[in-house]
Amino acid sequence: MARGAERRYGEKMARFRHHVFVCENRRPEDDPRGCCACRGSLEVRAALKAELGRRGLKGIVRANASGCLDACAYGPSLVVYPEGVWYGHVTPADVPEIVERHLVGGEPVERLLIHRFMERGPGQPGPGGPPAS
Amino acid sequence: MARGAERRYGEKMARFRHHVFVCENRRPEDDPRGCCACRGSLEVRAALKAELGRRGLKGIVRANASGCLDACAYGPSLVVYPEGVWYGHVTPADVPEIVERHLVGGEPVERLLIHRFMERGPGQPGPGGPPAS
Repeated sequence: MARGAERRYGEKMARFRHHVFVCENRRPEDDPRGCCACRGSLEVRAALKAELGRRGLKGIVRANASGCLDACAYGPSLVVYPEGVWYGHVTPADVPEIVERHLVGGEPVERLLIHRFMERGPGQPGPGGPPAS
Repeated sequence: MARGAERRYGEKMARFRHHVFVCENRRPEDDPRGCCACRGSLEVRAALKAELGRRGLKGIVRANASGCLDACAYGPSLVVYPEGVWYGHVTPADVPEIVERHLVGGEPVERLLIHRFMERGPGQPGPGGPPAS
């Protein structure tokens, strides 16, 4: 694997300083897995967009909707790239701290990390329940 | 910005070797911006999921759906993280080459790159038409 080439491309092409993907997957109400949308992820993304706007970060940090991130047990869940930091059980009230500390300051918010996703190295398959998309 | 800390987290936490986000945004048929879904992005993601399955990469590379990536002019568009490589005008026929050359071999497929997104450094705002989400 040509890791050097990937890094070079990544550095040349970074369109956003951070690209945040908030799971907005919605399942039927009786699905035992639940879903991020049922747990308020649309409100989390709305709060994130508003906070980024307030901080003048529109176009620099993008708050993207995503389909199922296969992190259902941790919903509402989101992932921040390029650094690959995963957050779970995020509420709109958590958003200003994520923006201030991580997206502006560069330090992930420890208390919201999905620690289970921190225990494997690059390229290892992840858990998260049954594949969901 | 504590770039060192971010890299460290990124390396510890990489849940997927590559996390691919395929725009599945759909707009009304008369919207002048068009949309990735209208141009066949769902078929692109289906082809990608199938190819990853064939190659034994399920759980290692994730083919995620996403909302609007603000790359409407290049639809169907997708972005591959953590390396931040953007592809545009992707068809299902392009998928085996993206998997073989980039996701397995580590070398981006030059002919599909969105070159406009390569011309700015990290943290610079992107273009791509009116903000769309």
